[in-house]
Amino acid sequence: MKELEKITPLEVDFPKWYTDVVKQGNLIAYGPAKGTLIFKPNSYGIWELIQENLNKIFKEKDVENVYLPLLIPESLFNLERDHLEGFNPELATVTHVGDKELSEKYFIRPTSEVLFADLFKNSIESYNDLPIIYNQWANVVRWEKTTNPFLRSREFLWQEGHTCHSDPIEARRFTRGMITTYSKFLKNFLAIPTIIGKKTPYEKFAGACSTYTIEAMMKDGRALQAGTSHYLAQNFSKPYSILFKNKKNEDEYVYQTSWGVSTRLLGAIIMTHGDNRGVIIPPRVAPVQIDLIELFAAKSPKVKEVSDELFELLRRKWRVRVDKSDKQPGFKAANSEIQGVPLRIEIGPRDLENNQVTLVRRDTLEKIVMNYKEVKEKVQTILDEIHENLFNKAKERLDSKTVWVSNYEEFKKEIEKNNFVIAPFCCLDEAEMKIKEETGATSRCIPKTIDKPDESMDCIFDTCKSKTNRYVVFAKAY
Amino acid sequence: MKELEKITPLEVDFPKWYTDVVKQGNLIAYGPAKGTLIFKPNSYGIWELIQENLNKIFKEKDVENVYLPLLIPESLFNLERDHLEGFNPELATVTHVGDKELSEKYFIRPTSEVLFADLFKNSIESYNDLPIIYNQWANVVRWEKTTNPFLRSREFLWQEGHTCHSDPIEARRFTRGMITTYSKFLKNFLAIPTIIGKKTPYEKFAGACSTYTIEAMMKDGRALQAGTSHYLAQNFSKPYSILFKNKKNEDEYVYQTSWGVSTRLLGAIIMTHGDNRGVIIPPRVAPVQIDLIELFAAKSPKVKEVSDELFELLRRKWRVRVDKSDKQPGFKAANSEIQGVPLRIEIGPRDLENNQVTLVRRDTLEKIVMNYKEVKEKVQTILDEIHENLFNKAKERLDSKTVWVSNYEEFKKEIEKNNFVIAPFCCLDEAEMKIKEETGATSRCIPKTIDKPDESMDCIFDTCKSKTNRYVVFAKAY
Repeated sequence: MKELEKITPLEVDFPKWYTDVVKQGNLIAYGPAKGTLIFKPNSYGIWELIQENLNKIFKEKDVENVYLPLLIPESLFNLERDHLEGFNPELATVTHVGDKELSEKYFIRPTSEVLFADLFKNSIESYNDLPIIYNQWANVVRWEKTTNPFLRSREFLWQEGHTCHSDPIEARRFTRGMITTYSKFLKNFLAIPTIIGKKTPYEKFAGACSTYTIEAMMKDGRALQAGTSHYLAQNFSKPYSILFKNKKNEDEYVYQTSWGVSTRLLGAIIMTHGDNRGVIIPPRVAPVQIDLIELFAAKSPKVKEVSDELFELLRRKWRVRVDKSDKQPGFKAANSEIQGVPLRIEIGPRDLENNQVTLVRRDTLEKIVMNYKEVKEKVQTILDEIHENLFNKAKERLDSKTVWVSNYEEFKKEIEKNNFVIAPFCCLDEAEMKIKEETGATSRCIPKTIDKPDESMDCIFDTCKSKTNRYVVFAKAY
Repeated sequence: MKELEKITPLEVDFPKWYTDVVKQGNLIAYGPAKGTLIFKPNSYGIWELIQENLNKIFKEKDVENVYLPLLIPESLFNLERDHLEGFNPELATVTHVGDKELSEKYFIRPTSEVLFADLFKNSIESYNDLPIIYNQWANVVRWEKTTNPFLRSREFLWQEGHTCHSDPIEARRFTRGMITTYSKFLKNFLAIPTIIGKKTPYEKFAGACSTYTIEAMMKDGRALQAGTSHYLAQNFSKPYSILFKNKKNEDEYVYQTSWGVSTRLLGAIIMTHGDNRGVIIPPRVAPVQIDLIELFAAKSPKVKEVSDELFELLRRKWRVRVDKSDKQPGFKAANSEIQGVPLRIEIGPRDLENNQVTLVRRDTLEKIVMNYKEVKEKVQTILDEIHENLFNKAKERLDSKTVWVSNYEEFKKEIEKNNFVIAPFCCLDEAEMKIKEETGATSRCIPKTIDKPDESMDCIFDTCKSKTNRYVVFAKAY
């Protein structure tokens, strides 16, 4: 096992802090192909718990899991123009097998709308078959120019849901319902608060009619798009001929949605909760929830005894690990902290003279000394408190760093401070591009929870003469 | 919902029966790229249960799940010659992104030995870091010329385990242990008996020192390789420089294993248990274990009432589905059967006059009438009986269709009858190729459970003059 290296403080250099903690937290290694990532046990374990818990939530919503092919024939991809243009520059293309050139090129899926479209086309007959609610867990490839672990890599893992409906109202309701589901999931499992809203036309998904998003704030104040849900209307069903017989026995194109979250969420967890000692993983998705750390076990048989007893007791309900290595106590504690294990229990001879052990919370570093017989009763409450505390701290930051502005000067000043900035905005592509160019900020969403003003306001963008009745959140973003 | 079509009887045309049932059992659709497959909910659900249960077993063996990249740079792949030569003709190759040609080609992983090798090289320092026991669930691509749903497709899903050890004996023990684990898993979860053995040099994995296999017999008598475990020795650690400091503080190359099962298992399930009514899914991996079928619910409110009560009662412990459609009872029963649901419960007004419902076993089609209040108590026993019965029937077939021969004439005759044939064999590549050419049979394994004879025998192959002390199982295979 390698020695722990120093972590760059996050106040000094946030990007460097991030790459330090992902490497040292047993989270990633770099793959041999540029911009690709290896998910080590501590990060893949989080993803597995995200999968497990989202699958339970999906099941309640009658989602059925399927798996579609990795490769998309070029001819199939080309039918929806916006979609093609949006993805074309990032498409990894298979042209050969062995030394033989293929007669048709294949794209590695950057997303699977067109594959699902092809499946739906061949499996739907009438309104009786609808809705169809499918989801797949898969890897996708997008050849990004600049990459960043979890946040932007050439391959990532995600779930992509795809539905067909006979009724546009039902489809729209489903789209909005899923973004709410995602927001709750982030709150309840990842301890991450988000702003729910709709993307501006410029930022919406290539091929969608409207895109809903949840936006989270990282510790440096930047935004991270953490999940999206798209109302596709008939944008795919028309070019891909996905028809159904409606109740009047007429042919009609289906109404579709798609929605997804990805391994970006791992980046969101790290940048929301981590500190200068390393990652902090929220308890409900922590691959290891409790580290048992034996101190001076060689000298004290009782340490080993109590450690074994606690392990057997706790493992039935929680994910527990024992560090039995002969490393120094200080190293063991630091190792547990850098890997973000929410709770560690230190079992040492001195505490045990009074039948006590010391619990150390990863979030507050608070030490709780208690009789080891009480641990089992108290653990869940402490883990829940850690979750709540992580969420509350993130929420306070989000609230305190979200500001309202009414003119472009203020806007630029607040963006410069890495705040989320709410401003009246015209939502025109050109204004959006200019703002991005001038400030580095992008529109994150038209927030759902803010009431539209009654009167129309001046657009925040200086040279824009439009009136608008929309508030839009802007931020620098990952 | 499409009407059910007729299934070709398996006695008439086994391959046609197979494609009929996979299509009609809600198992697959064909992907738009030739030779690719869509896993529909009924097959992907089996795979998810295989994953869930294997993960539990792996955890007991300290396996840690990770995820490595899809794309392998050409230069990395080329370091191990046998491995390269074995896979080269099947490698899907990415040469372009968008319209731009890449400076280096990438292969889509056909397996991940070289990626793991690269990871291990960079993460191991000393014997203290060993063993490393990693596994990944992933998709792989091998450009097969002829394809068959689940059995041989250009993309499939699998798990691939990769380990590093400081000690060759430990590594060999791990290799053999894993093949036993697989064999037990197939018995206990898929109700499939297998023969455990070692591959001949001709049939072993490209790059392995030795390959262990489990071989299953399909209903047509053909063999299906259902899982493999490879002892890689230092075949990868040398070209990929995976070194560790041993206890003498000397540099030494690690000893490796790799092992996997894939979505071929779905084909094995179908071809082992299916019948002329469709698929039969063993209860422990059935996405739906119990179908509740309401008969004439429109006319009888009690049907609905009892159905709801049973659903609420049973869903807590089993995977239950209710067919609430207004289709005819006969259609509902046939639909449940074709999808292989192990048990269905028919709830009809006549039975309910005596508070009874009818349970129908998918394997035997036996009807069991009982008071509906008793169902909850009886269900698990019936599901376990179905599992046992499926296994026993498959075991009887395997035993009765495995024959011993001592000369080449007998050998050819028994192979012609689609039997598993055990014969003394020299294990030379050339003899093996000739036998394949002349009979269509391949060596499946050198079975573990058969004692080696004391005296050396004549090789079964006519023109071979070798003596051998090995018995080998031959069969036509998928």
